[in-house]
Order: sequence, then structure tokens, then C-alpha cells
Amino acid sequence: MKNAHQHSLEFLFHPNSVALVGITTAEPWHWTRTFLEGLIEFEFDRPFYLVNPKGGEIKGHKVYTSLKDVPGSIDHVIGLVNAQVAARLVEECAEKGVRAVHFCTAGFSETDEEQRIKLESELVEVARRKGIRIIGPNCMGIYCPQSRLSFSPAFPKESGPVGVISQSGGNSIYLVRQAALRGVRFSKVISYGNACDINENDLLEYLANDVDTKIIALYIEGIKDGKRFRRTLQEATKEKTVIMLKGGATEGGARAVAGHTAALAGSRATWDALCKQLGIISVGSIEEMIDVLVTLLFLPIPRGRNALLFGAGGGASVLIADEFENRGLRVPPLPQEIVAQILEFTPVAGNILRNPVDYSQGMMNLEGISKTFDIVSRWEGADFLVTFVRTGQFTVPQITETHLNLLMSRFSIKQGHLPKPVAMVLEPSILPKEAEAILAAIRSCISSGLPVYYSFAAAANAINLVLNHTEKQSKRVLGEDSGSCS
Amino acid sequence: MKNAHQHSLEFLFHPNSVALVGITTAEPWHWTRTFLEGLIEFEFDRPFYLVNPKGGEIKGHKVYTSLKDVPGSIDHVIGLVNAQVAARLVEECAEKGVRAVHFCTAGFSETDEEQRIKLESELVEVARRKGIRIIGPNCMGIYCPQSRLSFSPAFPKESGPVGVISQSGGNSIYLVRQAALRGVRFSKVISYGNACDINENDLLEYLANDVDTKIIALYIEGIKDGKRFRRTLQEATKEKTVIMLKGGATEGGARAVAGHTAALAGSRATWDALCKQLGIISVGSIEEMIDVLVTLLFLPIPRGRNALLFGAGGGASVLIADEFENRGLRVPPLPQEIVAQILEFTPVAGNILRNPVDYSQGMMNLEGISKTFDIVSRWEGADFLVTFVRTGQFTVPQITETHLNLLMSRFSIKQGHLPKPVAMVLEPSILPKEAEAILAAIRSCISSGLPVYYSFAAAANAINLVLNHTEKQSKRVLGEDSGSCS
Repeated sequence: MKNAHQHSLEFLFHPNSVALVGITTAEPWHWTRTFLEGLIEFEFDRPFYLVNPKGGEIKGHKVYTSLKDVPGSIDHVIGLVNAQVAARLVEECAEKGVRAVHFCTAGFSETDEEQRIKLESELVEVARRKGIRIIGPNCMGIYCPQSRLSFSPAFPKESGPVGVISQSGGNSIYLVRQAALRGVRFSKVISYGNACDINENDLLEYLANDVDTKIIALYIEGIKDGKRFRRTLQEATKEKTVIMLKGGATEGGARAVAGHTAALAGSRATWDALCKQLGIISVGSIEEMIDVLVTLLFLPIPRGRNALLFGAGGGASVLIADEFENRGLRVPPLPQEIVAQILEFTPVAGNILRNPVDYSQGMMNLEGISKTFDIVSRWEGADFLVTFVRTGQFTVPQITETHLNLLMSRFSIKQGHLPKPVAMVLEPSILPKEAEAILAAIRSCISSGLPVYYSFAAAANAINLVLNHTEKQSKRVLGEDSGSCS
Repeated sequence: MKNAHQHSLEFLFHPNSVALVGITTAEPWHWTRTFLEGLIEFEFDRPFYLVNPKGGEIKGHKVYTSLKDVPGSIDHVIGLVNAQVAARLVEECAEKGVRAVHFCTAGFSETDEEQRIKLESELVEVARRKGIRIIGPNCMGIYCPQSRLSFSPAFPKESGPVGVISQSGGNSIYLVRQAALRGVRFSKVISYGNACDINENDLLEYLANDVDTKIIALYIEGIKDGKRFRRTLQEATKEKTVIMLKGGATEGGARAVAGHTAALAGSRATWDALCKQLGIISVGSIEEMIDVLVTLLFLPIPRGRNALLFGAGGGASVLIADEFENRGLRVPPLPQEIVAQILEFTPVAGNILRNPVDYSQGMMNLEGISKTFDIVSRWEGADFLVTFVRTGQFTVPQITETHLNLLMSRFSIKQGHLPKPVAMVLEPSILPKEAEAILAAIRSCISSGLPVYYSFAAAANAINLVLNHTEKQSKRVLGEDSGSCS
């Protein structure tokens, strides 16, 4: 593989200066404002400029009336202007030595209107002629915490190993914000929209070669060049784990795709076959993608499929066992000698000591929970442990806080210091009072390096998907998998 | 059907007095306290007594040292004593003229210990001899808002049409609390545990005859008498909608069931066939059960499967269309004449006017949203409308609140006054700041009579399940379904 710093798109992620052209001065939460808020919040440490024909000032920053009035040189432009003036902006950019323009602007080929399709072709024509690369139009552009570029002030400032290519801006925001709450951090996220110039293949090739990216997550609506896409994907899967969410896999979804990014969606069967053949983890929703990312990042790979489930509640124990076994994971019975050890200090009444281990009666007893956990986590019959807390089953919200505080004091142990991989199911609450206690618990688990899932089903599903992937990869290494790419 | 007031179990739900025997005086949030908190919070308006050999006082209520010291007569006892003294408590109850004892107490047959299985038989033997009915042991008992009996102070005080029979206490609490947040209200909820005396058949027969119950939701781990269960279910489905969640449908789940309520779980295939044959809506989780309840209660039955999806976000539009079509619902394209009407006041750039209708650019424009909604809701091509708000896709949390306030002012119209059935997808947030705004929006939708779902998948799944059920029921009425019970 090439050195990351030699890739032709590297410059995109490290602009020396940025201009936001077409930023709105009027409303405080207009969509054009998020790019400025991002630069401010991330303390962008190179020059940046605001441009709007109306001039004025936003948050103490001068607004230049035109690009040519900007005193310094400009590397990177974020275009927030109308589609009609996009091509003209590129001409102006050429005069300032700009190397790339990201057009957030919508209203091009995705509208399916002849005149607007033409606007997009004109844009491409000018950009090619002037040697300027275009991201978009109709997208959110680049989030690269390392270079302090972010299309939302709410994104994490630290970098991480996940690279994302998303044809949808909204889906990329959703992914970053929700995954960030679960401890996922990103190397580069690119929302690339209509892909009139830089497309999914260029970006995938870039991330495949990027030393900061270990996992690649893709949200793809449609592709421009199937052969190259397949080849690039195949290359990417050699050294990185790839997760794919295909948008527009149904007739209705495909119509939405056409209206969204003007792409051709392709059939479900084709995409499924592609993922299977190339060893790509295929997911059906962003939530599922996040669950898989969390598993890949935080769950040390279990050596097998035997789970020890540990939590409070008899009914909850039954349901989580069903969810795990329904997805091909195993919940083997706890042997009598282990049960006997727990019974030395635990009453049999109200606790179920089989597997799942239900410690309902000991929920407020830290010592009991700790000792039980230590015993079951040494049991050789289990390959990994899942602790579950279903706060919604407590009769009063007050119990949630007390129990979680207790539990978290136990799980301040780092993942790597536990005898087995441990995962945590912590069901969130929409009641603000409970939400706060649960959020604190989630953050505490994350800082201990635990993967956190929001439901029994989500945990079972993601762990199974990752184990499937791992099993398939090891077969591949051993040459047993005849279905591997040839 | 018999008149509800004649059923032999009616007395269970309307005790004239209650005693909590074995309530703990020490810890404020001990599990035995929830029953007292329930009586206080629900302002139980008949006499109630606390009993514990230690005596003392809890929250200003005298604690009697024994049942026989209680001055008045007692109808209903909630037994919180140890399993070892349960049978003796029943003897004492007989002397006070008690008619029913609910034993919350665990530590009986579910432990699989010979001695404790014997304790349960002894309990049953004494109760039968003394003519006292037993609920449980190992359960939460009765929630009946009409008679101010509740095993959690956090449950709603108003009654509603849903009756619940749950073998698990925790699952019944989870169901009531989570469903209550979505507007579901209950007639009677019974957590019945080991079912040593009163069992699922007695309770199902009761609810089938209860005039206050229109929908019956069952969480069943195992049954005592298969033939009677089938017959009672068949009777129940004649006049009520029945939803079933079978716990312990896998090997691991069945082991958990044995440890939980000592019941035999039965095979998945048997249960599936039963539900199919009797026209019961079968669900796989409590979350799914709640989604179905919300649909049955709040979505006027759509005349067909054509959905008009309406929300913000191109990527979100693609994904929701996929979720709906993947589940057999249809997302037909919006005809040009309707699009033309919307285009009179909406820019084409940044909005997708197909179906889904994506009004991204008009998110902060109430008039635009309202006019668009009015136009699409009159379109004959759609049988129902689904509005979706994915707050996690907004770049900054501040947008959530502004957008939701705007949207809610539009959806203050009552469900019945809209031209078509309307459902709402409102994704919750675990961030306390956003959680508050979203909870307010959820409550606003509920007070307008809208069903609220937490994800695209949940909405699609539940609406499909209910449409499947409705279609099957109408075939049955027309005599087309040869698979109906004979």
C-alpha cells in the first residue's frame, strides 16, 4: 500500500485556510452556520474567512463581500451559495488559488430537472478546466478532527480509527453523533452527496490507504463505476474491516435515492452478494452500524460463541437468553460447582443461578454483585460476559440511580484487566431524570473500555455479526473459504 | 359472554382492605416498599395495614407486629415474608377472613430445590383447605388503577383498555412504564409468577370476560394446562385482540424460564402455530408489544398498505422508505400534480418531493410545513401518513428544540380531524438536554391521539403486524380463511 501522505486526495483533509462563501448573516441557527460553529468550537488554528455579498459581521468575524476581497490565500472553500452561481464561484476560486470546493448547496441533478442537471455539468466543466476538485454538491463535506475541520460543533474533538464515507449528510451526522456517545471516534468522515467530481471510489481508495483509518464504514446510495468500486473495496478489505449500509435497497428507497443524490440504487441481491464475497459486514440501519463499530472497537474478540449473561430480573433473563440464542450465540448452563460457590453467600430465593445469572435480590449489595461477577467471569465454559441493566423494569426511578452507581463502581476495572471480554447492555430512558443517571453510567463504562448496547437484541445482533465476520476471516486465512475473492 | 361482575375472580381486583405483611422498615428503597408507595401514591381510599414482627412506623403509618393485631377486617394480603413462613401466614390469614393472598415472596419451586418445591405444595394445600386464593408466589401481583391498587407508584393513575397477564414481574413493570410513556393505559395488569393456584387460564378467562378490557397482552413463559389454555385463548380472541410474547422460546431461554417460574417452556413451533391459528398477534420482545399496542390504540386502521412518508433529511428518507417496503408496506411515488402544488411555494433545491417528502430546507418554516402536509394528506394515493423526526441528524442540539416546537404546533390537531390516519416517528435522545424537548413533543403528539414510534423500523414493523392482523380478521369474517379455528 502507498504511504498515506502520497495519496492525491490527502490535501483535502489538511487545508491551510478555509473560506465559507454564502454564509447567512441573519438567522442564528440557519444551516449555513454549522460550518462556522464547527471551526470555532474546534479552534481551527489556520486562517478562515467568511464571505457574503451583504458584508457585516458574525460573532466578531468580518464578513467579506466577495472572495477576491479576502486578504490571504485560500486553500479550501465551503460553498453555501445558490446552485445558479456555483459555477461562477468556482471561477472566482481559481483566481484565489483554491484547490478544492465543497458545495453544501443542493438543487442540482438530484432534482431531476433538466436545467439543474445542466447546472451540475457546468460546475464540473469549470472545475476540471480550472484544476479544482469538487466535493458534492448537496452534502456536508469533511469532518477531520486531526485538522480541526468539522461540519458540526457537536462532534468529538479527538480522533479515532473509524473512517466514514457517506452519500448522505444527515446520515453522517446521525452516525457520528450517536456513535460518539458510545465512545466511537473517527479519523475522517466525508459526506459526498451527488459526487459530481470526487466520488465514492476516490474516497474509498483514500481511506484504504490512510494510516489513521482501521475500520471503514460506508453509507452508499448508488455507485458511478461498479467495476472500480468492487476492485477498490476488495483492496480495502485486505487490511481494514469494512462495514456497509446500502440505502435504497427497495423500490421506494431507490426512488428516494434518485431524488436525494441522483444515484442509481442497484438491486438488493447484487449488494448482498458483493458483501458476502468480499468479507464486508453488511448492516441494515445506522443503529446496527453503530452497534457493529462499538463491538469491533471495544469487545476483545471472544474465542467462541458461549455467553455468560449477568443481570437483574427473571423475565429480563429469559428474554435476553432468547435474543442471544435466536442469533446463533449460546447460553450454556452454569455447572453446579460454580453455582455452589455463589450460594455460599447468596440466598437462593429471588436469584436465578443458572445462566443468565439473575442477581435481583442482591441489586443493592455491591459485595455480593462483585463476588458473583468474579466467580462467573472465571468460568471456562463462557467465552465472554454480558452484563445487562434494564432500568425500565424498576418500580421507581430512584432505584435506577442507586443501582447504577453501585454497578459502575464495580465496572471501573478496565476491559483488559477482566478475565474475559465483557459487554454491557444499558437501556436508556427518555425520562430526563433517569436519562442523566444512565448517561453517566454509559460514560463510565466507555471509559473502562466496555462496549455499551441499548437493548438485548442490539447486543446479540452485533456480537453475532462480528463473530460471523471473524470466523469467516480466519477461514479465509486458512484458505478454507472457497467463496473468497479470486 | 358472562357479565364481568359475575366472574369468580372479580373480587381480587376490588379489595375492601389490604395488609402488607413483612414490609421492611429499614431501607427506604427496599423492594418490599414499592407496594406501600403504590397505595400512597394512588391514594388508596379503603383501610390498609402494615405488618412486621419488629413493629414501628413507616411514613407515619403504624406497623402492627402481627396480622391478628390489626383492628379491622382484611380482604387482601400482600405477602412479603420468607418462603418458610408463607404457609403459616395463610393460616393466620384464614383467621382474619382474608380472601386472597398475593405472595411477592420468591424461593419456591423455581429454585428446583426439593425442600422449596415442598414449601410451595404446602402453601397450596393450606390455601385450598382454608378456601383462600393465592396469586404467585414470586410475582408483583395486581395493578388495577380503577381500584387504586398498584405495585409501583410510577404507574399511571388513569385506567385504559389494555389488560395484561405476565408471568414476570419485571417484564410487567417494564411494559407498563414504557407503554405509559407512549399513552397506553391499562384496565388490569396481573403479574402471576409461579401460578401455584390462580394461573394464566383463570386470568385469561377473567380478562376475556372483563368489560373494561378490549386488548389482552400476554407474557407467558409456560402453561399448566395446554388444552384449557387453547380453549380460553380461542374464546378470548372472539371479542378482543390478543397479543402474545412467549418467553423461553430457545434452549437457553427455556432454562431461564425453569429457574424463573418453574414452568415448562414448550417449543417455538407449537407457539407460532397456535398464534397463527387463533389470530393472535405474536411478538418477539416487549418493545415490539408496546409498538403494537400503540398502533392498535392510536392509529385508525388504514384502508390499505400505501404510506406517505413525510419528514426532514434525504438519507433519512431513503432509510425509512427501505424499512417500510422491506416489511411489505408500500411507498408509492407522489404524482406530478401534487408535486406541482407543493412547488408553488417550496424551492426544489434541498427538498425531495417524491415520497418520502423531504422538507429539509423548510424545517424552520411552519407555514411551509403546514401547507405541504395539508396537500399530501389529501392525496388519495396514500392510505396513511407517517411523519418522521430524526433529531440525531441535526448538527446542533439547539435545532431539535426549535424544530420540534414548530412541528408540534402543527400537530396539535387531533388525530380524528386529519384527513388520514397519521403516525409519528420521534427518535428519542439519551442526552438530557435533548431528551426533555423530545419528551415534550412525544407528550404533545399523544395528547393529539397520535401513535408515536421511536424508530423507522419499529413503526414499519408494528403497522405491518397490525395490518396483517386486520386483513386476516376480515378474511375470517368473510369465511375465506380456511385456517381459522374449527
